[in-house]
Amino acid sequence: MLRSTLIARFDVKSSAPVRVPGFKAAGVHCGVKEAGLDLALIASDAPARVVGVFTQSSVIGAPVQLSRDRVRAGCARAVVINSGVANVAMGAQGLRDAAEMAQCAATAIGVPAGQVLVASTGVIGARLPMPRIRRGIRAAANGLEESGLRDAAEAIRTTDTFAKTAVATADVDGREVTVVGIAKGSGMIEPNMATMLAFLMTDAAVAVPFLGRVLRDATNAGFNRVSVDGETSTSDMALLFANGVARNRELRGPRSPGAAAFAAATGRVAIALTRDIARDGEGATKLVTVRVAGAASGADAERAARRIANSLLVKTALFGGDANWGRILQTVGAARVRLKLDRAVVRLGGVTVFRAGASAGPAARRRAARKLQAPEVEVAIDLGAGRSTAHVWTCDLGIDYVKINAEYTT
Amino acid sequence: MLRSTLIARFDVKSSAPVRVPGFKAAGVHCGVKEAGLDLALIASDAPARVVGVFTQSSVIGAPVQLSRDRVRAGCARAVVINSGVANVAMGAQGLRDAAEMAQCAATAIGVPAGQVLVASTGVIGARLPMPRIRRGIRAAANGLEESGLRDAAEAIRTTDTFAKTAVATADVDGREVTVVGIAKGSGMIEPNMATMLAFLMTDAAVAVPFLGRVLRDATNAGFNRVSVDGETSTSDMALLFANGVARNRELRGPRSPGAAAFAAATGRVAIALTRDIARDGEGATKLVTVRVAGAASGADAERAARRIANSLLVKTALFGGDANWGRILQTVGAARVRLKLDRAVVRLGGVTVFRAGASAGPAARRRAARKLQAPEVEVAIDLGAGRSTAHVWTCDLGIDYVKINAEYTT
Repeated sequence: MLRSTLIARFDVKSSAPVRVPGFKAAGVHCGVKEAGLDLALIASDAPARVVGVFTQSSVIGAPVQLSRDRVRAGCARAVVINSGVANVAMGAQGLRDAAEMAQCAATAIGVPAGQVLVASTGVIGARLPMPRIRRGIRAAANGLEESGLRDAAEAIRTTDTFAKTAVATADVDGREVTVVGIAKGSGMIEPNMATMLAFLMTDAAVAVPFLGRVLRDATNAGFNRVSVDGETSTSDMALLFANGVARNRELRGPRSPGAAAFAAATGRVAIALTRDIARDGEGATKLVTVRVAGAASGADAERAARRIANSLLVKTALFGGDANWGRILQTVGAARVRLKLDRAVVRLGGVTVFRAGASAGPAARRRAARKLQAPEVEVAIDLGAGRSTAHVWTCDLGIDYVKINAEYTT
Repeated sequence: MLRSTLIARFDVKSSAPVRVPGFKAAGVHCGVKEAGLDLALIASDAPARVVGVFTQSSVIGAPVQLSRDRVRAGCARAVVINSGVANVAMGAQGLRDAAEMAQCAATAIGVPAGQVLVASTGVIGARLPMPRIRRGIRAAANGLEESGLRDAAEAIRTTDTFAKTAVATADVDGREVTVVGIAKGSGMIEPNMATMLAFLMTDAAVAVPFLGRVLRDATNAGFNRVSVDGETSTSDMALLFANGVARNRELRGPRSPGAAAFAAATGRVAIALTRDIARDGEGATKLVTVRVAGAASGADAERAARRIANSLLVKTALFGGDANWGRILQTVGAARVRLKLDRAVVRLGGVTVFRAGASAGPAARRRAARKLQAPEVEVAIDLGAGRSTAHVWTCDLGIDYVKINAEYTT
């Protein structure tokens, strides 16, 4: 029985309370960035179970190395995050600075240093301004409060135009548990980086192996389904903390009572954050859902969806509101995905523009072009070659993407 | 002994004669496009040996199907090419139209229809205006002349800003042979398509198996080393005709006297055309050569080079003249290419900006940024992980790319 209720906002103005029992947070300005909040601290009152997923890049930042090591213990009390400088490619100094961030936070809140995780996002190849970071961590520790997650979400932004938060609740064996998430955008680089960071917190009691499985499933359903510019960062990271203060009977596996509801709630938070990340791509004007059906295999479906999502030709056509099915077919073909042209169907904004091997005509194309003016649009193709499906979220690519990424100068 | 002389232009204004004995060509306006030349015919006085390489896309145009079949015979007299409409996704009608183009050209010049090849580039999903095409083919056949290859190069343009031609000569066993090529750009789409077409002609006498090998090698050294936006077209095609009027002893394999010189001349023509294609990417302001060294394997080197060449972050930084080594490292890491950060070296415009695991400092970065203002720039990385190398040509990505590809409307 799946009983999860999504009370999260899917838009910017929602006022759903972004809090979860037993977690406190703060976001402060410490001066890594010239202006705006740039340091976040999230802490659990009690020792929390923790699991993480990390960038697959072969170049990884010092905070990723540190947190990936520490998360293996399965237990943590806090995470400290800064934006502005990513602490990547700084050698041994970078590792020392990341460890010192953790130590400083641990001292300020009175927990063992090994139970504090670290994340950074921003410029590659610059050193963290440690005196400012230290002051910022102490200020954040003094300002921790249950309502602080919104400020924390603000503080981890780089070029994101809005802070991303989501909340869901689930009935776990008669007790209501909450899952909260904050995130910052991917593929959108301030100024050198394309980083996705996500931090999820729940008051549910969950054993570490099952918690890891829930995060992996949520990542596959959410964070791994966004593509803004096809890049993977040196600093990507998603963490899930569970502090157990809801006092439910511990969820040990998918058959534990309430496990499905908890997993669904976590997945929904991940999906809500992912859609906001896609919507907020640099220079983007619309959220695009790419749906592939009729693929000969799951791998074909995934490849087609990601190829469409990353095609410059498709993304610029969507920016221009052009119902250009030719570009969809061309990019799927270029990916060498199996398709039967005479059975293939392309739908843009819900309007069929290509079917039975031919254009559906200029009137359909004009109708689709009007639909593509909406802030949320769907690009769908049935390959006519099988029964597998896949979907990803992305955004269009406009002139502002080039401006943002070209006009940064040293 | 390799004796090939490149007399081709590498720039737009060169006045090297674009002709090769025994071939005639013409380019005419027949009305597929509103203005400008849009139909080309190239014919050999004598039956010519022919080989081709074709798009690997799983969606291919009717002209590709027809030409790929006919080229297997190893003998052809002519090729007819139109721009404006690609004749893709038109089903059986598309195949009939492509066959009729060949038939019409064959009748006009008095050769068997099966010995005429066809290529098209332009909009996907529209039918060729056959009455105009027929009139155009007859006009082109009447206008065939040895000096007609420049007009043919004009006529195959879509959004290319200049016609691309190259000429090289080689001493083959005491006789001078000529290799001429014309091409149009890839990844630059008028308005739906990213198509590269190249037609190479030589008066050398070459056996078909060796001719195929020379074209494959030239393709690997040239056409396959360009990446403008990572797309492969439904219509990509390169053909190499050899009519033997130079009366050299037939080149039957790499050890035939003069074979190396002929192969080198063909490779140089392919490379010259490829560099012009990269230089003329839609909205591009500079030709970029990406060089990877120190890779752990050839596959790693290729992957790193292509990933850098296709990275939106790198391409927009190059447009902005930003010596952003962080983005180079990040995108190589994202490709999961093996590298040793402490041994890696990044050079931009010949200036070392990253080495020994760290930035070479702001002065080096400023110096590199100045070098990146040039019309031809080099992006080089030594991965410090082995001895393999690779290079590709690409261009920067500017605001005009988005404008060109977004502002087409139906």
